[in-house]
Amino acid sequence: MTRPITFLSDYGYDDEFAGVCRAVIARIAPDARVIDLTHGVARHDVRVGAAVLANALAYAPAGVHLAVVDPGVGSERPAVAVRAARGEHLLVGPDNGLLWPALDRFGGAVEAVDVSRSPVRLEPVSATFHGRDVFAPVAATLAAGATLADVGVPIDAAGLARVERRAPRVGPGHAVAATVSHVDRFGNAALDLRAPEAEGAGLRLGARVVVEVGGTSHAATYAVTFADVRADVLLVYLDSYGNLALAVNRGSAAARLALAPGEEVMLRVE
Amino acid sequence: MTRPITFLSDYGYDDEFAGVCRAVIARIAPDARVIDLTHGVARHDVRVGAAVLANALAYAPAGVHLAVVDPGVGSERPAVAVRAARGEHLLVGPDNGLLWPALDRFGGAVEAVDVSRSPVRLEPVSATFHGRDVFAPVAATLAAGATLADVGVPIDAAGLARVERRAPRVGPGHAVAATVSHVDRFGNAALDLRAPEAEGAGLRLGARVVVEVGGTSHAATYAVTFADVRADVLLVYLDSYGNLALAVNRGSAAARLALAPGEEVMLRVE
Amino acid sequence: MTRPITFLSDYGYDDEFAGVCRAVIARIAPDARVIDLTHGVARHDVRVGAAVLANALAYAPAGVHLAVVDPGVGSERPAVAVRAARGEHLLVGPDNGLLWPALDRFGGAVEAVDVSRSPVRLEPVSATFHGRDVFAPVAATLAAGATLADVGVPIDAAGLARVERRAPRVGPGHAVAATVSHVDRFGNAALDLRAPEAEGAGLRLGARVVVEVGGTSHAATYAVTFADVRADVLLVYLDSYGNLALAVNRGSAAARLALAPGEEVMLRVE
Repeated sequence: MTRPITFLSDYGYDDEFAGVCRAVIARIAPDARVIDLTHGVARHDVRVGAAVLANALAYAPAGVHLAVVDPGVGSERPAVAVRAARGEHLLVGPDNGLLWPALDRFGGAVEAVDVSRSPVRLEPVSATFHGRDVFAPVAATLAAGATLADVGVPIDAAGLARVERRAPRVGPGHAVAATVSHVDRFGNAALDLRAPEAEGAGLRLGARVVVEVGGTSHAATYAVTFADVRADVLLVYLDSYGNLALAVNRGSAAARLALAPGEEVMLRVE
Repeated sequence: MTRPITFLSDYGYDDEFAGVCRAVIARIAPDARVIDLTHGVARHDVRVGAAVLANALAYAPAGVHLAVVDPGVGSERPAVAVRAARGEHLLVGPDNGLLWPALDRFGGAVEAVDVSRSPVRLEPVSATFHGRDVFAPVAATLAAGATLADVGVPIDAAGLARVERRAPRVGPGHAVAATVSHVDRFGNAALDLRAPEAEGAGLRLGARVVVEVGGTSHAATYAVTFADVRADVLLVYLDSYGNLALAVNRGSAAARLALAPGEEVMLRVE
Repeated sequence: MTRPITFLSDYGYDDEFAGVCRAVIARIAPDARVIDLTHGVARHDVRVGAAVLANALAYAPAGVHLAVVDPGVGSERPAVAVRAARGEHLLVGPDNGLLWPALDRFGGAVEAVDVSRSPVRLEPVSATFHGRDVFAPVAATLAAGATLADVGVPIDAAGLARVERRAPRVGPGHAVAATVSHVDRFGNAALDLRAPEAEGAGLRLGARVVVEVGGTSHAATYAVTFADVRADVLLVYLDSYGNLALAVNRGSAAARLALAPGEEVMLRVE
């Protein structure tokens, strides 16, 4: 039985990095379907990569999930392959927190192996391109039907690196602080705030909301979707992954409010 | 029988939008081949998306064609699946004109269903990501062998939204006016003008042509291909889809003439 | 027997060029797997495209390799399909040197055909999009099991165009001159210098190296990988394809040293 492979990275599109990984996979598992999730994760941004991976894998078929955002390539961080508690999902990537939020949504990790010196790695392993030499061959071998024990050495699944999620903080006047976790190509800015947390601060559909960024206040409406406000109007909405987000109908919230990942934002009902 | 799926959108490459749609498809139709046409259509540009789709589908295999350029997502525009008169083609996307030029080249639409509340949609349907929640599952279900009746409610195929093509206008001195419909990465600018229309204005191969843009005149040659003129020389040519286009050999016509989609251009024989 | 097809070009991602070629392939060889290597080669840069293709194909499965970087489309350069001496590799593309370094690594070319007027080309062949009208149908037909003789007219395999590699030059004080052959998205700059040549100039792991660019000297360390130096430190290293390269740990060597392909660099031991 051949498993499909999803593939996410920060390799970008200008270079052949993702393509060479696909070539390596095709050599080992010629029948495995490869589903590119994205290779546009901002360079070395493990936190954003982890959030995007978790969001995307909620829609992925059972199989192998290859993810590479790896600023520490060549250092001592382990390379791992991990089995999730639910859904027949095997994740392959660097053990730097990238895989954690996705594993968490699948009920956690129940089995893990260190694949840094995997018997299926390509020799000599380069110091800088573990996607090609370690992660892709491990993912392809798993896709072709191997078990975790075939590709690495058992390690404690409870000890995998995590990217912790910051708890939302409630400020004066029932304001809630959040951080921009992601900005998409449309200039929509996702916050690390879920609907129940927003409701705890009194934010509900239809509310007029004050958005504070860098000392400046902006008036917004909490709406279902872009089309619920006029063009060029700022809105707060629940994005398609269940996170609160900021958008400007037919415009760019990121440009209007000078938002980038990591930016802190305060929201309160007017 | 599994049908292949072509996929075009304005989702870009920085985000996981197209990738998540591919994941949804793989879950529903694991054996369907997905052929990405492009995800680089300019954001929300239905007119350009429609032209690119029509051009590309002339070369596509029979099957399902998923297209999403959808500035009105979340508003009342229907989501549709449509069967073309010729070639066993099923098109899936928003009913905002995006699908029309392609359908027109396939002899028109002979059957259409509204899939906004399709039984195969992913629940809950988000307000902002119908590609993932409506269009991809409908396309995948059709690829797996379903009929239009399985995925939506019949509507009048004659009532689908259209993006009308502007008729070329002939001006003084046999000049012909055209509009830039698309600029590619090489800076070549396609016009909404076909060969017979150009011939009606006296433009023929080898002619010296005056190109007027924004009050400035540029000398050009009507040539077969780039290599027929010297480097840096402006040419008028019939592009690979049969539209008149402007190019600079080994340079960029868009940069030289400050051209963007929507720009009006006058052509006349010198 | 269906062969897989790798695909590299300078078509970029904004347009549908690569997608239309994939559509053409799917029509002719519906079961052939297409492995996109990259479409991000700098426009018309045959030299960089040739280097990237050779690097990537070292990891590719046996099959058909379609490559299109073709500034001379429409001129007299032949379109070719070539069989390599080793590994059951068939290469398809313009005969402008693009294919040569890859063929060279596969032991050279043992059979070649001119496919400019291939019986499997799409008629009418456009003057500007031979990827769609000539190269893709030829590649797909070969993938579906055809022989070279089926798709073109025999030509002398020894007469294929070559992009010659400049020999490294040793300057005063054992300095070695090299040229930047490629800059990747991370700002890492690959040189046209292999490990033995560097060793000939005394460059060895751990050495402190002076890098001269445009009259300015920069101190660097010859290290195995990024993590061996502190953040923001310049290093010389052997990249994953065996070329000497310049990088800044967690930074960009290209930005720091103003490097672009073609830039000359001098390296000497401090």
